[in-house]
Amino acid sequence: MLRWLTAGESHGPELVAILEGMPSGVPISPEQIQADLVRRTLGYGRGARMKFEQDELTLSGGIRFGLTMGSPVALRIGNTEWPRWVEVMSPVPVDPETLPKGRGAALTRPRPGHADLTGMQKYDFSESRNVLERASARETAARVALGAIARAFLDGLGIRLVSHTLSIGTVRAPDGSPLPTPGDVAILDADPLRCFDPETSQRMVTEVDLAHEDGDTLGGVVEVLAYGLPPGLGSYTHWDRRIDSQLSAALMGIQAIKGVEVGDGFETAARRGSVAHDELVHSAEGISRESDRAGGIEGGMSTGTVLRVRAAMKPISTVPRALRTVDIATGEAAVAHHQRSDVCAVPAAGVVAEAMVALTLANSVLEKFGGDSLGETKRNLESYLAAIPDALQTTRATYAQ
Amino acid sequence: MLRWLTAGESHGPELVAILEGMPSGVPISPEQIQADLVRRTLGYGRGARMKFEQDELTLSGGIRFGLTMGSPVALRIGNTEWPRWVEVMSPVPVDPETLPKGRGAALTRPRPGHADLTGMQKYDFSESRNVLERASARETAARVALGAIARAFLDGLGIRLVSHTLSIGTVRAPDGSPLPTPGDVAILDADPLRCFDPETSQRMVTEVDLAHEDGDTLGGVVEVLAYGLPPGLGSYTHWDRRIDSQLSAALMGIQAIKGVEVGDGFETAARRGSVAHDELVHSAEGISRESDRAGGIEGGMSTGTVLRVRAAMKPISTVPRALRTVDIATGEAAVAHHQRSDVCAVPAAGVVAEAMVALTLANSVLEKFGGDSLGETKRNLESYLAAIPDALQTTRATYAQ
Amino acid sequence: MLRWLTAGESHGPELVAILEGMPSGVPISPEQIQADLVRRTLGYGRGARMKFEQDELTLSGGIRFGLTMGSPVALRIGNTEWPRWVEVMSPVPVDPETLPKGRGAALTRPRPGHADLTGMQKYDFSESRNVLERASARETAARVALGAIARAFLDGLGIRLVSHTLSIGTVRAPDGSPLPTPGDVAILDADPLRCFDPETSQRMVTEVDLAHEDGDTLGGVVEVLAYGLPPGLGSYTHWDRRIDSQLSAALMGIQAIKGVEVGDGFETAARRGSVAHDELVHSAEGISRESDRAGGIEGGMSTGTVLRVRAAMKPISTVPRALRTVDIATGEAAVAHHQRSDVCAVPAAGVVAEAMVALTLANSVLEKFGGDSLGETKRNLESYLAAIPDALQTTRATYAQ
Amino acid sequence: MLRWLTAGESHGPELVAILEGMPSGVPISPEQIQADLVRRTLGYGRGARMKFEQDELTLSGGIRFGLTMGSPVALRIGNTEWPRWVEVMSPVPVDPETLPKGRGAALTRPRPGHADLTGMQKYDFSESRNVLERASARETAARVALGAIARAFLDGLGIRLVSHTLSIGTVRAPDGSPLPTPGDVAILDADPLRCFDPETSQRMVTEVDLAHEDGDTLGGVVEVLAYGLPPGLGSYTHWDRRIDSQLSAALMGIQAIKGVEVGDGFETAARRGSVAHDELVHSAEGISRESDRAGGIEGGMSTGTVLRVRAAMKPISTVPRALRTVDIATGEAAVAHHQRSDVCAVPAAGVVAEAMVALTLANSVLEKFGGDSLGETKRNLESYLAAIPDALQTTRATYAQ
Repeated sequence: MLRWLTAGESHGPELVAILEGMPSGVPISPEQIQADLVRRTLGYGRGARMKFEQDELTLSGGIRFGLTMGSPVALRIGNTEWPRWVEVMSPVPVDPETLPKGRGAALTRPRPGHADLTGMQKYDFSESRNVLERASARETAARVALGAIARAFLDGLGIRLVSHTLSIGTVRAPDGSPLPTPGDVAILDADPLRCFDPETSQRMVTEVDLAHEDGDTLGGVVEVLAYGLPPGLGSYTHWDRRIDSQLSAALMGIQAIKGVEVGDGFETAARRGSVAHDELVHSAEGISRESDRAGGIEGGMSTGTVLRVRAAMKPISTVPRALRTVDIATGEAAVAHHQRSDVCAVPAAGVVAEAMVALTLANSVLEKFGGDSLGETKRNLESYLAAIPDALQTTRATYAQ
Repeated sequence: MLRWLTAGESHGPELVAILEGMPSGVPISPEQIQADLVRRTLGYGRGARMKFEQDELTLSGGIRFGLTMGSPVALRIGNTEWPRWVEVMSPVPVDPETLPKGRGAALTRPRPGHADLTGMQKYDFSESRNVLERASARETAARVALGAIARAFLDGLGIRLVSHTLSIGTVRAPDGSPLPTPGDVAILDADPLRCFDPETSQRMVTEVDLAHEDGDTLGGVVEVLAYGLPPGLGSYTHWDRRIDSQLSAALMGIQAIKGVEVGDGFETAARRGSVAHDELVHSAEGISRESDRAGGIEGGMSTGTVLRVRAAMKPISTVPRALRTVDIATGEAAVAHHQRSDVCAVPAAGVVAEAMVALTLANSVLEKFGGDSLGETKRNLESYLAAIPDALQTTRATYAQ
Repeated sequence: MLRWLTAGESHGPELVAILEGMPSGVPISPEQIQADLVRRTLGYGRGARMKFEQDELTLSGGIRFGLTMGSPVALRIGNTEWPRWVEVMSPVPVDPETLPKGRGAALTRPRPGHADLTGMQKYDFSESRNVLERASARETAARVALGAIARAFLDGLGIRLVSHTLSIGTVRAPDGSPLPTPGDVAILDADPLRCFDPETSQRMVTEVDLAHEDGDTLGGVVEVLAYGLPPGLGSYTHWDRRIDSQLSAALMGIQAIKGVEVGDGFETAARRGSVAHDELVHSAEGISRESDRAGGIEGGMSTGTVLRVRAAMKPISTVPRALRTVDIATGEAAVAHHQRSDVCAVPAAGVVAEAMVALTLANSVLEKFGGDSLGETKRNLESYLAAIPDALQTTRATYAQ
Repeated sequence: MLRWLTAGESHGPELVAILEGMPSGVPISPEQIQADLVRRTLGYGRGARMKFEQDELTLSGGIRFGLTMGSPVALRIGNTEWPRWVEVMSPVPVDPETLPKGRGAALTRPRPGHADLTGMQKYDFSESRNVLERASARETAARVALGAIARAFLDGLGIRLVSHTLSIGTVRAPDGSPLPTPGDVAILDADPLRCFDPETSQRMVTEVDLAHEDGDTLGGVVEVLAYGLPPGLGSYTHWDRRIDSQLSAALMGIQAIKGVEVGDGFETAARRGSVAHDELVHSAEGISRESDRAGGIEGGMSTGTVLRVRAAMKPISTVPRALRTVDIATGEAAVAHHQRSDVCAVPAAGVVAEAMVALTLANSVLEKFGGDSLGETKRNLESYLAAIPDALQTTRATYAQ
């Protein structure tokens, strides 16, 4: 069982994250984690904040000489802007008089689409600073950092993840586009919108430009793929052991995600049964499937073919052309606070989704194979695959590195 | 914290379910539970099995004199077909010679879209009987029964659920159709497909008829609504406390569900930010929202407006016009076992989805308000609502009973 | 991860239990479970109730042809006295007039040492029937039944449990008495108090007789041993992964247990460090320990030597020579309700403790080794032991069958 | 539900801890946490390390302007010795040649009583540095820091904890000694062994001196008391909801603890029933108990009287007069590494036990009363107490501040 917690506020001194239950012997370097943190900040349509905010990574525990130790892994991501927020986010009481005028002002105009209003009701706050500091998407940096460790673990088992952008606003990659493989990750990361279809990517750039001109924002859909999975992660025996249920929770647990699909998802619901499933045929390497509509999951279990899940992100709620709200200090109509200028954060969401999938799959692997060291988990995984009778062997998703 | 487990095989003697953590004093009768069990078996497009299989309910513990006791609630749902399966599903070894020829035969042709093949690999079975017995959707009867208890608890707090069918195959209720309210449940239950739009319902009947003629099956989309929720269930503070994450796990944890949406879901991802959120305006009863695109969830919390979530169900995998597979006993191409004749189970899926939402929300209520008796939980909920300052009061979704 | 829930009231129709997460392929028969249920009812000092109450076992799911299926195992234990309690424990409302005078009367004199008084406060009951029905030790029958399945799983891995009685009242087995091994279980079960030292057992019989004559009750101390464990169950990396923490929760979670020890426990606290630990020496089979003061647990992990834990049971709270209480209907002083006539339930507590230890160890084994079938778990366990380098090999506790 | 994780190695840069689920509005200052950290380092019998190791506290998140924010609380405890360990505990690979000779040497002589040997087997390490770094008791500083926050929460609800030392080695406070109350904490903290009986404390000092002269170490027994609890925390309805089970796990989950008692614990097991329980009598303030043998817990629930639990600590395993072991590099007999010179850490264990009890009770309070702000939890607690009918009112443990 893998457990993890993140902490820290958007403008606080640092994010902190702990990952508990990771086996020993997983090779991991600060550079790997940092690389993922950088990937999270990229993408066409991000505003200035991403440029001046850097993620300063510190490893606090659980890793020694480049390998996990089996003990909890802890890390911190420093906020380079912290000096400007020392008073406003002080853990100890400060004289209100000394607070800077702008950043220190009470936030009394809750933003539609954000946690602001309900957060104040729930936690008994008279303004929304405390809410937005934690509800902010900056917290996802901590998840991405932990996801990098989970990914290193999966990597050691031959399991590789890829994420890419399917749509931005109304621009969508054509149906039937080829799926990117682990060998394509560098290309994806170089694309302004992490879209695998170059022509679509260009149209997405235009879509972002148009929205920017209009003072508006965009959402979109991302997809995460996993190659090299063994069959049998998850289970049909109880609802919460289903890997689709767990993946769905992981993806919908990302800020701004409003929809999740496994495989062809909602499209499948409109098909007839005769053309909605993946027929089984014999091949030299074992039983194989001729299509992958199910997204590599049947009966709540990985089948060993490419796992494929999607998340739909709503457009950024902080809209330059501000939305209507109520000022709770006066009860008057007002427009919502506007604190940043991103047009679109969908490419980043793909990287976050990848991290969440990595953490979920790593947990599933440990649930099925156990192991306190990478070597032990790997040995158990391989002996399982070897023990499947010939008559039941199936082909697995392979990939070029 | 609410915990629950279900057990039992499709053709075993009975399903068993335990719900642990329900407060005392919740009024519940066998008739209420039975009524939900019946709702699960209805719907146009169900085959003969639904007719001869009846759900025999027994309450084993946790309820006395019509009220929950605070102790775990246990119930059983007897299988009226059990006498025909006594040997095949015997818990003790039987002489293979004595097994009935048909039902007792080894199932060696795994069905595409089912857990059969991966289940055999995972659990080391040489045929798929053990798999399909548990992976079967019959297990959802146990969830519906527990959901009825969760619903009774929510009802005591003024929270009411409604489920309805949005689409069957390619037939979909028109955008902007009015939402059904708790007062409409009887009408929905009387509709052949639990669709709130009568004209759409008629077209759905035709869609089912056509698929039936073609020896094919259909999926669709259901929606669950919750009225009367307080603001602040769930939280933005950690990903797995988000109520949308939890609801998504609950819905995707239902057999055959491949997609989940909160509010307008994937459609939201294609909108621009200026028209994707729910603006806040002042009204006599407090701050209110002029639209409900977010499905009553912002920042991972219920806002107090109508909660709205959707699930996409794939078409039934057991297709009369059978799918290709491989016979694992011979390694030869074959067609999949065909065991039932339903065309469409979407209306039932709505009832199951409602149960899963009820269990999830009941847990969220207990997480926020605590309470060991219905009275205590209710008192805590009401004092929370009363303590929200006037400036932060919001309108809640009301409903005609 | 193994999860389990029990349900059912002491005088209700049945106890129900579900064990979720047990691998497939574990051989288990109703007779094995029933045998453990019988062991729970034995022991010198039990009253009449144990004789007329029989445990009618029904397997509801998760077991087929004598093997677990990987799906949740469910079972029921019927209450042969149920016909006499149908009205009093009715799940549906009954006319109070029709309740039998004795059994149906309000219980308004809360018994010291029981859950009665606090239970009424917590769950908002006006009399204590609802409390004592669930707080009763009868519930432990459900745990013993599940424990039998966990034990069958451990047995398949070469792990065997033994429980025995160390003391009854002030009579205690001499320090340094030999430990019983799995081969001694039949002898223990035949002993009136499940004490391994015959002379002590005789003195215990006298102790029970004296208490009985005086209208009084007795407690005592039981010990559970586990042979054949691999080293490394549990972990030092986080407090709640420590196997001693988990075992302690399991034992203290049994009704009437007020103390728990690992190895020499409290005695160790009074020793000096030079004579409190188990020194390591070289032997032909690997590194071995010359003593077992630590009870087979160091650093929160099993060491592979005999695991040894103890539980202290308070004397039965329902004392024939009744204790003082207050009648809550009148506010007057009163004596406590007296409903049964056991003098001592310590031997039964040993059987329950064994079940709890079995469930805890089975979970630890799955956490470390994973596995969805007994064969897979066993393969993983054996390859782990084989992979320990020669220089680190340690001797394991062996036993005569 | 309160969740918490700790991370960090004994000689690493820092300990990190996250506490998730704490309501907002709890007043907490770095000074309060620091004060508890200091208390953990005191006590007669501690060696030099405690003097030069200081705990440098940093608050990373979840606290603003002196109040918790409802978001996860994160903190770090810096290791002032870190500069001397930078190479040895480096998260990135280092050239072995550059490692300092002493601290950098392979630890190949596993210490009896420690996690060393089994830890190497479990996590596949060739020497024990990685094990002892995490298994070390230094980790408890992180728990104490989180416990200070839990204590602040309880304090806001009128619940106060006290811990004290009952015995050191064979020296034990006399039976029937008065219990310290919250008003006595300053006195206890000033006592060299945190013993409430001055005469016993003096004898304990002598016991420590004698052990020190003999190159030996000592264990002992600590007790934690909780005043001001409401009745009804925990539950009899399921074993793992019992507060005694949870407290037992919390205490046994502390390094070096080998025994746990609730109330009179093992002594109760030797009593007869007529003198083992707490009789109920009427008083002006409600029903009260004339004794407190049960330690304030009946039926797995707090009764509202003083909660009282104990933990038995084994003597420090690192004995100056070193214990026998095997050098795994050579296979030869050896003596165990000796790294520190404490004689006795029992007073510190009391502070750690207090922290674990605080975290456990805080979780129980949230389970029963819910609440997202201190004010909400308090309101719910008070309305529960007020709603208990007069006939069921019981006296609560009061205390002088």
